[in-house]
Amino acid sequence: MKCQRCSQPAVIITANRKALCKVHFIQAFEKRVKDTIKRCKLLSVNERIAVACSGGKDSTVALYVVSRLYKDVTAIAIDEGIRGYRSKTLKDLKQFCSEHRIKLKVFSFKEEYGATLDQIVKRVRMPACRVCGILRRQVLNRHAAGFDRLVTGHNLDDEAQSILMNLLKANTELLARLGPITGIKPWKGFTPRVKPLYLCTEKEDAAYAILMGFNIGFNECPYAGSSFRSTIRQALSDLEDKHPGSKQYLVKNFLRMLPGLRKRVSMDINKEKNKEDRCIAYCKECGQPSAGRVCAACSIIINLRAKNSSGRDTALTRVFYAVHKD
Amino acid sequence: MKCQRCSQPAVIITANRKALCKVHFIQAFEKRVKDTIKRCKLLSVNERIAVACSGGKDSTVALYVVSRLYKDVTAIAIDEGIRGYRSKTLKDLKQFCSEHRIKLKVFSFKEEYGATLDQIVKRVRMPACRVCGILRRQVLNRHAAGFDRLVTGHNLDDEAQSILMNLLKANTELLARLGPITGIKPWKGFTPRVKPLYLCTEKEDAAYAILMGFNIGFNECPYAGSSFRSTIRQALSDLEDKHPGSKQYLVKNFLRMLPGLRKRVSMDINKEKNKEDRCIAYCKECGQPSAGRVCAACSIIINLRAKNSSGRDTALTRVFYAVHKD
Repeated sequence: MKCQRCSQPAVIITANRKALCKVHFIQAFEKRVKDTIKRCKLLSVNERIAVACSGGKDSTVALYVVSRLYKDVTAIAIDEGIRGYRSKTLKDLKQFCSEHRIKLKVFSFKEEYGATLDQIVKRVRMPACRVCGILRRQVLNRHAAGFDRLVTGHNLDDEAQSILMNLLKANTELLARLGPITGIKPWKGFTPRVKPLYLCTEKEDAAYAILMGFNIGFNECPYAGSSFRSTIRQALSDLEDKHPGSKQYLVKNFLRMLPGLRKRVSMDINKEKNKEDRCIAYCKECGQPSAGRVCAACSIIINLRAKNSSGRDTALTRVFYAVHKD
Repeated sequence: MKCQRCSQPAVIITANRKALCKVHFIQAFEKRVKDTIKRCKLLSVNERIAVACSGGKDSTVALYVVSRLYKDVTAIAIDEGIRGYRSKTLKDLKQFCSEHRIKLKVFSFKEEYGATLDQIVKRVRMPACRVCGILRRQVLNRHAAGFDRLVTGHNLDDEAQSILMNLLKANTELLARLGPITGIKPWKGFTPRVKPLYLCTEKEDAAYAILMGFNIGFNECPYAGSSFRSTIRQALSDLEDKHPGSKQYLVKNFLRMLPGLRKRVSMDINKEKNKEDRCIAYCKECGQPSAGRVCAACSIIINLRAKNSSGRDTALTRVFYAVHKD
């Protein structure tokens, strides 16, 4: 098959059903990211930009494209402590940042909570992906505080999964927090999240990373199989196979509903607030934005602390006291 | 397991996770239907009510409950002409209406279009379920014209499927047409559709029909396996098995988004209308409400007519001319 824009052989059929050669695909991909940033007002010049990086293809691609478009860009990585997985991806990321002269800051669960994810999941009754997501978000919130924007590598497939997951859950508020930019209304201590790869599929991200020669492993997190997300990922993937375009339509339809949904949810929250004063905006433990009195991350830590109420403080609870109680 | 309201053995666990005996389930089911009618303002006394019936469990249950609550209720059935399937369900329906003294009107594709569905699907390149849905809707529109409301037997499972199906399609307008009541803004010749079983699951409908001793077959339409809906039905059923409550949450989340979505879609339609005058409200062939110049039903018939352009009119096209061109 030939490229639709020149006579070279096509290397990919894009999500928009265009057959493109390497050069034209890279051009088209970067243009789509630029257009997403512009149309959704994700980033501006002179902003201090942090990019949440895992060393995987999506966040590395986001880091690369954003670092070429903006001056003040810093990669932030978190070492959750997942044996046999994270150290490899972090090594790749360090090398990538050094090659492309991008600042990199690495934080770890071990330093933040005194224990690795592998150690924590053995002691809480929650799916590993949920614990990891909650704690990673807290660490990111804390260290992104000095930046104007936090870029994440979420792609169209991720967003389609999040939309469907949250459509099938009881909490409509979580659904209203999705979209290419979240947290724009300034909450103290919360850096707005932006997703420049919002309209790029996972396949396109992978193709871009490979064609640009990025040294990225494609190994999967050992906890990935056990989550609700993985069930949804499989279901959406099956639907996409049978009805191509399903994921794109889901995201586009959702975007048309999002403004109305946010308005409705914010009206309901305000009503609730006036009625019962149940809506606390900041966690009373760590001071970060939270839907409840105690945020999900501190709840996990409190839960772990309770399990050690025999009097003996573990390394984990000691660090928790040090971090949260001073 | 015992009923949560008395000491009798429970016969069902409802969608709201309540174990109930026969008597209390029937009470709870009828209360939920009544509440849905009241809260969503589906029906009023002194209205002329038609109920679209297939002879299957859902529409029969809707017919029964509505006929007990309102005076002027007429069952409308359509014989699409599906060999080995429809005649049995229609026989059951006739017997049911006669037993419960409910007026019944039966219309058929054979009379309306001069051909059965079995004959039509052999000559159009469209999935049978799509052709059937479009033509059945046209016949229903035509014959429900003298009524104030048209009740359908759509249950929570049906609605969850429709929501997900339309979320995965390009046309956001179709999504905005869902909900417990549609077509309330009076369109000439369009009777608003209402769904009293909107918050009852398929399992609950079946349980009610069985416990009430209704003589209903549970055989499936021979065309059912081939549709997009059946793919979605399977996907949702798998998700519900793994994450109970998924379908309910999908419908509830959608209901919170629906008002905003309808506003947005209607704004977009008006913008389009002013810009290009492309938005025609009535089909130029049959005069029924339509999103395009020619409605989907007339497009099918025109398509069939074109296939017979050799000069020889078939019974089907003769009837089409008779119905649509006078």
